[in-house]
Amino acid sequence: MELRWSATDFGNRVATELRALQERLCDALGALDGTPFGSDLWLREQGGGGVARTLAGGPLFEKGGVMYSAINGAPLPEVALRENPELSGRETYFATGVSLILHPRSPHVPTVHFNVRYFEAGGTFWFGGGMDLTPYYPRREDCIHFHRTLKACCDRFDPAYYPRFKAACDRYFYLRHRREPRGIGGIFFNTLKDDRERTLAYILALGAAFLEAYVPIAERRRGEPYGERERAFQCYRRGRYVEFNLLYDQGTLFGLQSGGRAESILVSLPPQVEWRYDWRPEPGSPEERLTREFLPPQDWAAAE
Amino acid sequence: MELRWSATDFGNRVATELRALQERLCDALGALDGTPFGSDLWLREQGGGGVARTLAGGPLFEKGGVMYSAINGAPLPEVALRENPELSGRETYFATGVSLILHPRSPHVPTVHFNVRYFEAGGTFWFGGGMDLTPYYPRREDCIHFHRTLKACCDRFDPAYYPRFKAACDRYFYLRHRREPRGIGGIFFNTLKDDRERTLAYILALGAAFLEAYVPIAERRRGEPYGERERAFQCYRRGRYVEFNLLYDQGTLFGLQSGGRAESILVSLPPQVEWRYDWRPEPGSPEERLTREFLPPQDWAAAE
Repeated sequence: MELRWSATDFGNRVATELRALQERLCDALGALDGTPFGSDLWLREQGGGGVARTLAGGPLFEKGGVMYSAINGAPLPEVALRENPELSGRETYFATGVSLILHPRSPHVPTVHFNVRYFEAGGTFWFGGGMDLTPYYPRREDCIHFHRTLKACCDRFDPAYYPRFKAACDRYFYLRHRREPRGIGGIFFNTLKDDRERTLAYILALGAAFLEAYVPIAERRRGEPYGERERAFQCYRRGRYVEFNLLYDQGTLFGLQSGGRAESILVSLPPQVEWRYDWRPEPGSPEERLTREFLPPQDWAAAE
Repeated sequence: MELRWSATDFGNRVATELRALQERLCDALGALDGTPFGSDLWLREQGGGGVARTLAGGPLFEKGGVMYSAINGAPLPEVALRENPELSGRETYFATGVSLILHPRSPHVPTVHFNVRYFEAGGTFWFGGGMDLTPYYPRREDCIHFHRTLKACCDRFDPAYYPRFKAACDRYFYLRHRREPRGIGGIFFNTLKDDRERTLAYILALGAAFLEAYVPIAERRRGEPYGERERAFQCYRRGRYVEFNLLYDQGTLFGLQSGGRAESILVSLPPQVEWRYDWRPEPGSPEERLTREFLPPQDWAAAE
């Protein structure tokens, strides 16, 4: 079995680079956990396919996936059309990307999501991506470290990137029905069409920045003790993650609607989740501080 | 605090009857569990509100809700417009309904959903509703009993109802991304505009039929022993329930989009849920028989 697709030479290069990025991420995260990621190759009828690398039941990561895909398809997702008015929508597209989600076992270690992607269709191309952090018992220094690392990486390419993509992230990862942000944000960009070589370098640099941003937080927090209360709160908050991904996430909805591989797309869902009717944290508790102090969007990179 | 809304005299009667139905259901189910349902009154800015009656941590029901609402709102849900082409969509509507979901603790007792609703807008009205059963370790006799009870109730009003609404239920409770039905079906109807007095009698009869259909199954199965394997499978399958409700369920999506009370709407989500990457039951196991033997739509009422 082998992945086969049709793309431009540049598209093929992106696909090769992203596959290598997937391996680098799995090597680093597998070493961090002490458990190697498994690997599944899957093929898509319309062309292409992917490599699903997953881990479950590790000491650090209760569930994690680093998913790579390179596919041909049609028609284009609506969101892609909205931002590329020159396309008719009937074009066959080529898309390649890496999508990562980690659900740590400890409530002290934040859930994290990272994604970079490249599309080409009808003679045009665009990149998308981002990463965001979803803590349960956040620490100020972790939020600051995460955002500063992202900002430093963005600034090497364009000082306008971080403020723009940070604001887009706050807008995007928002649960309207709860009037609540998903986490403490990060960066998000949907349609980046700057110089393609430079943008490819940027999304690969984001892959490295992700490890710099997340790994130290996981290392600092993984040994902190917790009990049933913290675990229950983590399982409860994970419900918000499910709600966001199934109600709002464009990648998830587009993937499922376009007949994508459900198991690869839904690997983002947490391993154990709880829903309780109308539960509210006690005022002043750490659980209440999450929503009151940490979730409202703020300029973490400039905070002290 | 008091619920206030604007409706026709008939609409007010439906609202009163459905509130009484909510109480009858809670009385019967609370007695079955041995735990009384709690009660929350909530008001909606645009008019009306509801009574949320919920139970959690009971010996039989791990989580359950019987939700009543009577509200004014605008604009009408798109699905309502599609089926009522005479409306402009700008009309203020009145809607009242009872929606029930029970998540039993034991994997041997099926999850069940029941809903009846009434809408009026711009001089027209329609009823909707249904109920469906989602077992984990189903028994043929339970599936047959459930469907026969529904059919007997439907047949008292119109022999065309059961076959039509059973087929609609099979179409509606379907997870396209999994190519899998949610459960073993039941009945579902979206826009019933037959004689209004008779239809009101029909939906109240469905409330009684629900208890006849479900209570004996819960009583027969609640004492059956189970272990970690069965519990894990139940938690895993509950993931499908979440996926259906957040990806497809029109009531859930309309409720959340129209600014409904999130906690009332999402009371349908199970208390504990698990997602595992690409898990498959062993061929020939009871877990595999669920999807192979029981989930494919079949004529349960005529089965032996």
